[in-house]
Amino acid sequence: MPRFRETTLKSTPSVPRKERIKDPKNVMRSVDPAALLMLEKAKEKNLLSAYDRFAAQQPQCAFGYEGICCRICFQGPCRIKSEEGPGSKGICGAHGYTIVSRNVARMMAGGASAHSDHGRHIAHALLHAAEGKIADYKVTDVEKLKRVAERVGISTEGKTANELAIEVSQAALEDFGRQTDEPCTWLWSYITEGRKKKFEDCNIAPTSIDRAVVAMMHQTHIGVDADPVNIIFGGLKTSLADYTGMHISTDLSDVLFGTPKPVITEANLGVLKADKVNIVVHGHNPLLSQTVVNVAKEMEAEAKAAGAAGIQLSGICCTGNEVLMRSGVPIATNFASQELAIMTGAVDVMVVDVQCIMPGVRAISECFHTKIVTTMDNSKIPGSYHYAFDEHHAVESAKGIIRLAIEAFKTRKGKTCEIPQIKNKVIAGFSLEALLELFAALNPETPIKVLTDAIEAGEIAGVALFAGCNNLEAPHDNNHLTIAKELAKNNVFLVGTGCSAQALAKAGLLAPEAVEEYAGEGLKSFLKKLADANKDKLADGLPLMFHMGSCVDNSRAHDLCTMMAEQMGVDIPKVPFVATAPEAMSEKAVSIGGGAVAMGIPTHVGTMPPIEGSSLVYGIATQIASDVYGGYFIFETDPVAAATKLTAALDYRTWKLGIHKKTAERYETKLCENY
Amino acid sequence: MPRFRETTLKSTPSVPRKERIKDPKNVMRSVDPAALLMLEKAKEKNLLSAYDRFAAQQPQCAFGYEGICCRICFQGPCRIKSEEGPGSKGICGAHGYTIVSRNVARMMAGGASAHSDHGRHIAHALLHAAEGKIADYKVTDVEKLKRVAERVGISTEGKTANELAIEVSQAALEDFGRQTDEPCTWLWSYITEGRKKKFEDCNIAPTSIDRAVVAMMHQTHIGVDADPVNIIFGGLKTSLADYTGMHISTDLSDVLFGTPKPVITEANLGVLKADKVNIVVHGHNPLLSQTVVNVAKEMEAEAKAAGAAGIQLSGICCTGNEVLMRSGVPIATNFASQELAIMTGAVDVMVVDVQCIMPGVRAISECFHTKIVTTMDNSKIPGSYHYAFDEHHAVESAKGIIRLAIEAFKTRKGKTCEIPQIKNKVIAGFSLEALLELFAALNPETPIKVLTDAIEAGEIAGVALFAGCNNLEAPHDNNHLTIAKELAKNNVFLVGTGCSAQALAKAGLLAPEAVEEYAGEGLKSFLKKLADANKDKLADGLPLMFHMGSCVDNSRAHDLCTMMAEQMGVDIPKVPFVATAPEAMSEKAVSIGGGAVAMGIPTHVGTMPPIEGSSLVYGIATQIASDVYGGYFIFETDPVAAATKLTAALDYRTWKLGIHKKTAERYETKLCENY
Repeated sequence: MPRFRETTLKSTPSVPRKERIKDPKNVMRSVDPAALLMLEKAKEKNLLSAYDRFAAQQPQCAFGYEGICCRICFQGPCRIKSEEGPGSKGICGAHGYTIVSRNVARMMAGGASAHSDHGRHIAHALLHAAEGKIADYKVTDVEKLKRVAERVGISTEGKTANELAIEVSQAALEDFGRQTDEPCTWLWSYITEGRKKKFEDCNIAPTSIDRAVVAMMHQTHIGVDADPVNIIFGGLKTSLADYTGMHISTDLSDVLFGTPKPVITEANLGVLKADKVNIVVHGHNPLLSQTVVNVAKEMEAEAKAAGAAGIQLSGICCTGNEVLMRSGVPIATNFASQELAIMTGAVDVMVVDVQCIMPGVRAISECFHTKIVTTMDNSKIPGSYHYAFDEHHAVESAKGIIRLAIEAFKTRKGKTCEIPQIKNKVIAGFSLEALLELFAALNPETPIKVLTDAIEAGEIAGVALFAGCNNLEAPHDNNHLTIAKELAKNNVFLVGTGCSAQALAKAGLLAPEAVEEYAGEGLKSFLKKLADANKDKLADGLPLMFHMGSCVDNSRAHDLCTMMAEQMGVDIPKVPFVATAPEAMSEKAVSIGGGAVAMGIPTHVGTMPPIEGSSLVYGIATQIASDVYGGYFIFETDPVAAATKLTAALDYRTWKLGIHKKTAERYETKLCENY
Repeated sequence: MPRFRETTLKSTPSVPRKERIKDPKNVMRSVDPAALLMLEKAKEKNLLSAYDRFAAQQPQCAFGYEGICCRICFQGPCRIKSEEGPGSKGICGAHGYTIVSRNVARMMAGGASAHSDHGRHIAHALLHAAEGKIADYKVTDVEKLKRVAERVGISTEGKTANELAIEVSQAALEDFGRQTDEPCTWLWSYITEGRKKKFEDCNIAPTSIDRAVVAMMHQTHIGVDADPVNIIFGGLKTSLADYTGMHISTDLSDVLFGTPKPVITEANLGVLKADKVNIVVHGHNPLLSQTVVNVAKEMEAEAKAAGAAGIQLSGICCTGNEVLMRSGVPIATNFASQELAIMTGAVDVMVVDVQCIMPGVRAISECFHTKIVTTMDNSKIPGSYHYAFDEHHAVESAKGIIRLAIEAFKTRKGKTCEIPQIKNKVIAGFSLEALLELFAALNPETPIKVLTDAIEAGEIAGVALFAGCNNLEAPHDNNHLTIAKELAKNNVFLVGTGCSAQALAKAGLLAPEAVEEYAGEGLKSFLKKLADANKDKLADGLPLMFHMGSCVDNSRAHDLCTMMAEQMGVDIPKVPFVATAPEAMSEKAVSIGGGAVAMGIPTHVGTMPPIEGSSLVYGIATQIASDVYGGYFIFETDPVAAATKLTAALDYRTWKLGIHKKTAERYETKLCENY
């Protein structure tokens, strides 16, 4: 019987820092053929993008990269040595572990703020719609509203949809502002009993989202907390606040716009159409973008009157995912390559809301006819068009933006565009409800049992959630694709969100053909059974990875994991479920990661967050977290090694559960010598 | 008639960056004779402190120092050039102005979080005390409670003190958690009508403290706001949230512990007593420290039984100020020299709560018998004693800490201490109420008119608030003392808080003798009249600067300024009132400063916050702020030049008001050539 020494496998990146960015000035910059084509064209035309600016920043400051630069007070900056001795402490006497943990905890606070503020916006929109104060939104999915209400302990009896929506959105807003000691309602309504006890024992259950963030900003102020464990655990509290905000976002977006169902569409720059008015929606918030999608249908005639073949919508980042999931809008590209979409010359308007919008889009749009339209009060780019969006005039704003795009199309009409003719078929739209409906075709009584049975039978090795971001430290999309292919080969059931799902979508991995090409035997047989049972509804088949939505929709994957735990009769630290952020970049990724770890999930990060400056903090993230929460971070920048570590983490759990028939067979032949 | 060209005077620091820290390895490190003595002893014994660690950090990273290092996402760090051209943008395309404004706005969010979380703690304690849930606290100042209630619109009629306290503390907590669109109650209850209109017009009135912080963290997340004006104005919203939290802290601390009245005490390390049990309280929150002070009286006998002459309490930073103001506890020292107190060998216990506690105190305590006692869940130092403080067991905790100190004294008894025999008399305790009572001796009807009349008569040039921090970029205390002496000479009425008031206290400037030595003729005559009218109550005379309390008590100075505005019939931008943070260091200083600017106050900062990397942001802070809000930043690291600029700012306002008899006379002879 092999032992699965997961700690050895999970603890250290196999690529040392100085080798992570090889040949920095001429690095292989992307594995996306459409992006590579555009980068070639950019070179010809001397157009700069994030890829060039990344190269120009090399070598990056090692202090900042490792997290041992402190700028929290302005006696600093203090750059300290990570080893003991002179220069190993900041001016105030803060040790490396204090500085690193403060910096990382503040990233969690930043991420939680971004996700949650998005959730608050949705909650306000739902409240105002239900109160009849705004006409452009309404409760669309009454069934979801009822499910959410029941889940959070609100009786649905005898209430109209609007009455119920008012109560639910007010309960959500309470999770932002509560000043008493009860934990956040949303958090407490969706997690296992085991997690509740753990979070209470460790005092990391947030009482309100906003308060958790403020408390963390206070805790990391000059001269407050110096204890890295206390700081990191405080950070986890903000991560659970982030979880709460994400869940509110997902639930209430579904109520407003409908719970996603399977859709068939396409991805990559080839979705842009030279003869159509191209409007790209980019950012994270569906409030405006979904309205643009809805209104665009009515404005086809106006576009045609201007000489266009119609209106072509497409998306980037999570606003793109929101409208992909609910309306089948194709994906133009993901985070790293957002500027390249504009370089095609075909984008008439790029309408942006919040988060992950490179200010660089504005600079590059100067070289084309493209208009950048900002829409949110808290997110402007100097020199852009600004359509101040408010829920009271959503349709009006959307119409204005579409008309602007039609005008821009007129100036472009007849000119050549350079659209790479590269795109792939995409089957997406897998909300948890949609996924369970697939399973229900095999087991109508207990749909989730289809998944857990397959794990218990050794048919699939477990579940992996792919989340978030591109980070140019890794060649664009390469980590996403490599790890996904490796895990698929190892029979891991894949779900994805955010820019990760988009990377796979562009590469064709959300198409049924990918199953044949990449899935191991067990996964292939599992997916075939599932596809066969659902062929009346989904004749096209099933994808290799199930796209669950935007980054706030990681909450859907958490719910999947919780259902698995409940079905298997264990808490999450025993569930064969792993998460990976192969190209993590944003503070949101840090808070999502922290939340996943606190939930008990082994969580891989494929690009290094700034923590290598303290071996103690590194140890807290990779080891102490595991001892306390059952979840832990795996930092591994080599994607093949990462896949091995993730597989090992799953196998360790199935082995511990006594589900090791196939697992043991595999390891007997494959891993025994390594362990 | 001279013109006062304040813009020229206010805009640029007279000392270029590279000359700011002369001879960095052997810099004149303090002007406090007690600190200098201890630094000599430290050198003999090879003990390191913040002074040495500051020298060891030189030269500091210029990117960080100027604010053009971005670590908000972890594709970075991006260090950019402040000039246009290659390398002038981050990987995402963010310009220097975006990076600088994001960094500074996050500092405001950090400061607002710290101050406000402190206020929340006090509000909860008052609520729980009034509800009868905790026995160790009670409503002490019923009159203040009534004044606050009336001010924030709560009827006092027919309510017991506890009933009223419950309503008031709940209203305060609402200012933390509100999710609707009304501005914070505390903010709206204390400011001028003019400011309300301005804040509404500019959309910078916070609806809740916590929400403002979260919104700012979101706004500055990767790919959200790139517009520096929008970001900085968002930062001002968090600064007004900070103001709200400060005001709640002050008001409710007064309710719990009493509104300060004049006290006579001493300051500097000479207050430590070799033959007594020395307990130093350090940090910012009065909840525990005031209890220690109250309990210590009952425990004198225990200390004497252990062979001590008694218990000697003293304070550092704002916890020190809180107990100084209300109980006359002497000041040991201020921020920069906190470690030096321990080096005397006389400190038996240093009990710390939150904010501005150097982790270095723990390392230095290792070389002595001193015990560092941390008390707050969110503020620990590895290796320290931790007495988990909660309001339910405050007296018990305080007794435990005092007993620990008595035990520590026993191990010290008989050994030599090296206490510098340097201290100065201090007259402090000037809450706004206490100050108005002084004025009432001259004008019982309208006390504030005593101050405004003196300005209108040209007897005094205006009012200057001295606030916050030491920053070793400037020699310890030198900026505080130099600017105070210069302004006093120019007949400016001085009020102070925080480490600034402590710097002056240690140097004897809060003693009546300082008036004779440093005040100009007008100020001297004004203070003499005031002292004469109050000599029955304050036989010792009046200080050169009126110590208004801890850093949250800047709210008292704001109220003074608002009363002046109302008395003079103008809005704050016309009131001859300036603020200075001569040695600003913390994020709290940035948020206090932002609040002062938004309120319409010319605000000097004597150490550079990280904004020089963007001339645009520099211009927003020093010029655009002035155009929009009437307040503006004056960055000037040379203290004499700073005093000139502050005087010019006051003179400009008195000249604009037509109060220029004496002013004009002075400028005819003194400043004409410079203008």
